[in-house]
Amino acid sequence: MARWEPDARGRLLRAALDLFAEQGYERTTTAQIASRAGLTKTTFFRHFPDKREVLFYGQPMLMELATNGVRDAPADATPLDAAAAGVDAMASAHVEGQREYAPQLGAVVAANDELRERAAFKRASIAGAMADALVVRGVDERVAALAAELGARAYYTAFDRWIAPANTEPMPDLARTALTELRAAAAALA
Amino acid sequence: MARWEPDARGRLLRAALDLFAEQGYERTTTAQIASRAGLTKTTFFRHFPDKREVLFYGQPMLMELATNGVRDAPADATPLDAAAAGVDAMASAHVEGQREYAPQLGAVVAANDELRERAAFKRASIAGAMADALVVRGVDERVAALAAELGARAYYTAFDRWIAPANTEPMPDLARTALTELRAAAAALA
Repeated sequence: MARWEPDARGRLLRAALDLFAEQGYERTTTAQIASRAGLTKTTFFRHFPDKREVLFYGQPMLMELATNGVRDAPADATPLDAAAAGVDAMASAHVEGQREYAPQLGAVVAANDELRERAAFKRASIAGAMADALVVRGVDERVAALAAELGARAYYTAFDRWIAPANTEPMPDLARTALTELRAAAAALA
Repeated sequence: MARWEPDARGRLLRAALDLFAEQGYERTTTAQIASRAGLTKTTFFRHFPDKREVLFYGQPMLMELATNGVRDAPADATPLDAAAAGVDAMASAHVEGQREYAPQLGAVVAANDELRERAAFKRASIAGAMADALVVRGVDERVAALAAELGARAYYTAFDRWIAPANTEPMPDLARTALTELRAAAAALA
């Protein structure tokens, strides 16, 4: 199972978050981030095109986990159960260390219009990946889009709960609970 | 009913789209857009903070229309019927002239990562506005979020069909059809 290890990317993210907190997002340069992480600028650019993408480096991995999770669900799984498998695959990849810096990351994103737009795109991309994977399974396009939307919403809801200071539940459990709540809401709606 | 009139904003949008097509988005300046529209740079900046926002100027109006549509739905409307009223308010504001330049606008956005992110944010903002308006009506937060998501999806689906060359149906009819299809998909899911 792929995990977020304290590798170069993780070090660059922590360095970036520290610098953004100290001097603001706008004022921070890629050179400063690399230096704070104890890495060269060349290493920085091997991992990220710019400082913004440091904050969103989980996106490709999440999309892949979601896609594979949906693909590998049992053949007779309903669309929502297949989406749930995608959500579970994403939720299971989160490691405890992330809980420390996630609130700080969220605050940086929330304070900047450009980053909020990027975050909306990330969310749409994850939902889109799940929808595509459901269509590959033969699910009707509209049903796939809605199942994927419920899945993405469950994932984000669970993540917010997971990083809350009082939380002690594992991320996969929170994701399952969130999806159960959303299933009920969808039933109430229809 | 508010409508998109061929005002300064509309002129700036058409000028911008022409210039983006001729020389690309990146190479076009706000001064060029103003000049092509026969307006001053000062007028440009009275309407838009930058060239990018020219492409998204409908967002505040759509959010307001959706919010008011949901608010003014009958007191006994279901969450989905109230969302439908918001969608209808947005759909009814579209005027024929938009169909001419909408495909060109869509192509510019699709070709540029930054603009696609901005478009994802616009979509999320419209859905968010509808969800907020539903919560004000006393709808449960999760049900509101899902009803708003169906509404936003119906609106965008209808818009894509409306601007298709072969289409002759009015936008509000297309929006109603799209929402009916999505209701069926939601029922199939739940």
